[in-house]
Amino acid sequence: MELNKALEDLAALQKEYFAFQYAEAMLYYDSVTGAPEGATQGRGEAMAILGGRDFEILASAHTGELLDYLAARRAALSEPQNAQVRVIRREYDQICKIPKDEYTAFTALTNDATAVWHRSKQENDYASFAPFIDKIIASLIRFAGFYDPEKDPYDVFLDRYEPGMTKDKLETFFTELRRTIVPIIARIMESGVQPGNDFLFREFPVERQRELSDYLMQVLTIDRKYCTIAETEHPFTIEFSKHDVRITTKYLVNNLSSAIYSAVHEGGHALYELHTGDDLMYTFLARGTSMGVHESQSRLFENMIGRSEPFIQVVYPKLLELFPKQLEHIDAHSFWLAVNRVEPSLVRIEADELTYCLHVMVRFEIEKKLFAGEITAKDIPALWKILMKDYLGVEVPDDRSGALQDSHWSGGSFGYFPSYAIGSAYAAQFYNAMSNDVDIEDAVRSGNLSPLVNWLTEKVWCFGAGKEPDELLLSATGEAFNPQYYLDYLKNKFEHIYGLDGAQSTGG
Amino acid sequence: MELNKALEDLAALQKEYFAFQYAEAMLYYDSVTGAPEGATQGRGEAMAILGGRDFEILASAHTGELLDYLAARRAALSEPQNAQVRVIRREYDQICKIPKDEYTAFTALTNDATAVWHRSKQENDYASFAPFIDKIIASLIRFAGFYDPEKDPYDVFLDRYEPGMTKDKLETFFTELRRTIVPIIARIMESGVQPGNDFLFREFPVERQRELSDYLMQVLTIDRKYCTIAETEHPFTIEFSKHDVRITTKYLVNNLSSAIYSAVHEGGHALYELHTGDDLMYTFLARGTSMGVHESQSRLFENMIGRSEPFIQVVYPKLLELFPKQLEHIDAHSFWLAVNRVEPSLVRIEADELTYCLHVMVRFEIEKKLFAGEITAKDIPALWKILMKDYLGVEVPDDRSGALQDSHWSGGSFGYFPSYAIGSAYAAQFYNAMSNDVDIEDAVRSGNLSPLVNWLTEKVWCFGAGKEPDELLLSATGEAFNPQYYLDYLKNKFEHIYGLDGAQSTGG
Repeated sequence: MELNKALEDLAALQKEYFAFQYAEAMLYYDSVTGAPEGATQGRGEAMAILGGRDFEILASAHTGELLDYLAARRAALSEPQNAQVRVIRREYDQICKIPKDEYTAFTALTNDATAVWHRSKQENDYASFAPFIDKIIASLIRFAGFYDPEKDPYDVFLDRYEPGMTKDKLETFFTELRRTIVPIIARIMESGVQPGNDFLFREFPVERQRELSDYLMQVLTIDRKYCTIAETEHPFTIEFSKHDVRITTKYLVNNLSSAIYSAVHEGGHALYELHTGDDLMYTFLARGTSMGVHESQSRLFENMIGRSEPFIQVVYPKLLELFPKQLEHIDAHSFWLAVNRVEPSLVRIEADELTYCLHVMVRFEIEKKLFAGEITAKDIPALWKILMKDYLGVEVPDDRSGALQDSHWSGGSFGYFPSYAIGSAYAAQFYNAMSNDVDIEDAVRSGNLSPLVNWLTEKVWCFGAGKEPDELLLSATGEAFNPQYYLDYLKNKFEHIYGLDGAQSTGG
Repeated sequence: MELNKALEDLAALQKEYFAFQYAEAMLYYDSVTGAPEGATQGRGEAMAILGGRDFEILASAHTGELLDYLAARRAALSEPQNAQVRVIRREYDQICKIPKDEYTAFTALTNDATAVWHRSKQENDYASFAPFIDKIIASLIRFAGFYDPEKDPYDVFLDRYEPGMTKDKLETFFTELRRTIVPIIARIMESGVQPGNDFLFREFPVERQRELSDYLMQVLTIDRKYCTIAETEHPFTIEFSKHDVRITTKYLVNNLSSAIYSAVHEGGHALYELHTGDDLMYTFLARGTSMGVHESQSRLFENMIGRSEPFIQVVYPKLLELFPKQLEHIDAHSFWLAVNRVEPSLVRIEADELTYCLHVMVRFEIEKKLFAGEITAKDIPALWKILMKDYLGVEVPDDRSGALQDSHWSGGSFGYFPSYAIGSAYAAQFYNAMSNDVDIEDAVRSGNLSPLVNWLTEKVWCFGAGKEPDELLLSATGEAFNPQYYLDYLKNKFEHIYGLDGAQSTGG
């Protein structure tokens, strides 16, 4: 093989893979935004064939040889080329290290598990779902042995979603985080004082909420030539290329805050994808670098910007224009307090900014123990209740609003939840570094977010998946992952909002 | 090769092709219903790769051998298997008989031509577009030689869109049709009396028009579990499987008739696709048999059913409910007259039912002469004006509303236009045969179209592409193509509407 030929092959492989991923992503996107109910079977047949083809592209002997050949010539490759080899290798290993029949069996298992989970959740029937968790954990532990027999199995999967992340690092982070959050929540609850938020649940016509989303995209500097908004049951953002990003959102006629923060959250994801480097197009680098880093961008915009008082001040005239009756006699300051109201609750996806990470920690503790063999699926509901009581002070009445609430485990995604919390902590670290170069509050207050967008493009987004999370944090912020920024941010923000400033926070 | 193995290969080939066509159709559908403007380049890259793959599937040496092997064993195959071999062979020949470099050059030529046509139409600049027509005709004549050197080149392309159709058959049909239509139009124009239709152009809120489309789908018995409605610039219907059909339509705030007949027309196409046989799924037969037959179904529902007085009587209460102000003091009879108003005009896609085919004939005459070498592109505008004056009695003021109005030629689709007119004639023949078994007016009047849907399913739709058009007409109606039904239908309908009954129609 010659080096030039190998590099050409590398580019061709990625473009070919891009085309298949494009098609499969489009079928998925269509399935949750516009397809009729009856489409399932035909789409399944098409997906199986397309999926088989992209499996062949990635998992071929030629790909393996090409990656070996190029890995042996690192010095002769550019930085992005080396990054491509690294990222493709990761995906290649993920498929090729598992015997094909085990891989197929696992796909069937998670398909069944997902179907059973849907029913179990509906019927509050944890017992039917439990055996699937045990089977999935057993498979994943076996897979971890194929991937990296030296490594702790849970670490193998944490690393899949967040390269470089380990159980130990998370334990340190979460312990600190709990010590910060739990006492603040306790003091808020003890104070018995809450900002009013009933006006957020009045009737907001969906057509107006759509206008609001369009307006928020404009505030976020999103060029709609390259980004659409569709509607779906569980909002997400998906990209086909940096010039074609699709946000999805959901409108609840009685919940204004949901519409705002769904749009701003997905807007953060979209901004990342819209600003990956032009030179990365049609390569494996044209995407976010990890789940955690992606989530850091959505949470930075949703919570740190979107729930800040300057942001509310800027968008409030538009809110009043769209909903004059519903927001009558409510000023921007009250609105800001309302969207930051803290209230321990049962369901992760409805949690407020402060309590959110505690929900993640419940799942982390359980996943850790499952992988360590300290518990099996039957023990989860009881442990769930204990942890929720311990961390959030809430009583879990049933499994539907407890251990059955999330879909992730049924799909085999263990090790995924922590990336949500890591994302928030990364966000605070990026925000802090950005504040050294940019007057963020001033930019937000002026309604022109370009300085933020420019900083993030240059420091984070333009690299796509070209840097590992650790590397990216170091280059963008000058230091390795440091959760202290997040702890400080939460403490300052919520003590201020609840008027607890100056008081000593008690250790948790 | 063993027969069983060959049949397995045939099924596998079709399913594989189905998956790629599915993906490409989805990318197309997305591009005209939801994609952001910036998506073009990425989609183009993905399409090129996916298109290359499905080209390889169809145009492989293995496919050629398989088709030869099976064609030599017709007696051992079932009727649908033989039909599959026939239909796949047609598509195979269409690709494989043209040298690959000529095929590629032609694709590039039509891409350029389409771009230039868009500009030319906008700027009323026929001269820039003309050279492309000459080049396309030259290529098509060369292609016709590859396809079938014995056959008249124009016949080769007529047959592509409507298997079995020839210039001679069309000439006979069109001559008769002109003799019927032209005098009726003349008498209508001479009478100087027209039904009022100004109320069709009042303001109809789009949200209400959407409700109307949903209602019309219900009247057409379309199960929305398998069929959605999206919005686009140039409405069409596309199917992914018989359980997944997508109608697209367009709403003009000042045109109610457009919304109604776009929905009913596309509904007719959708009904066909929704009722192809279950056993045809994932084969080349799971689609309509020809352009003309497909169009016959949409026009049967649009014109023969949808513009009939019983249909208007049935849907009118809903129209009044949705648009009480706009239709105040208008009764169903006046509404029916209005949607059947005849008025010669310049633009084909805005033409009424009676004058429509004359627009098609203008294009047929020109295409015929281009293929025969009697004229070249430079002669088209003058000939267009003469024919429009002759057939429709209208003066063509410019090429934008003349020879530049349609996109078809720029895409290389010569021989396509006649299928619109053939479709209308087929529709009348099917309608007549159906009326022997079903009391159509009675069914429509009762608002229950099931008897029609059942008849058409059994006689037409269930076969998909399993029968050639001629064969289908014969089996469904008991006779070969007979345009007399269409001539009688037009004469009766429009003489009745315009009160010309009993009067002698003058020869044209």
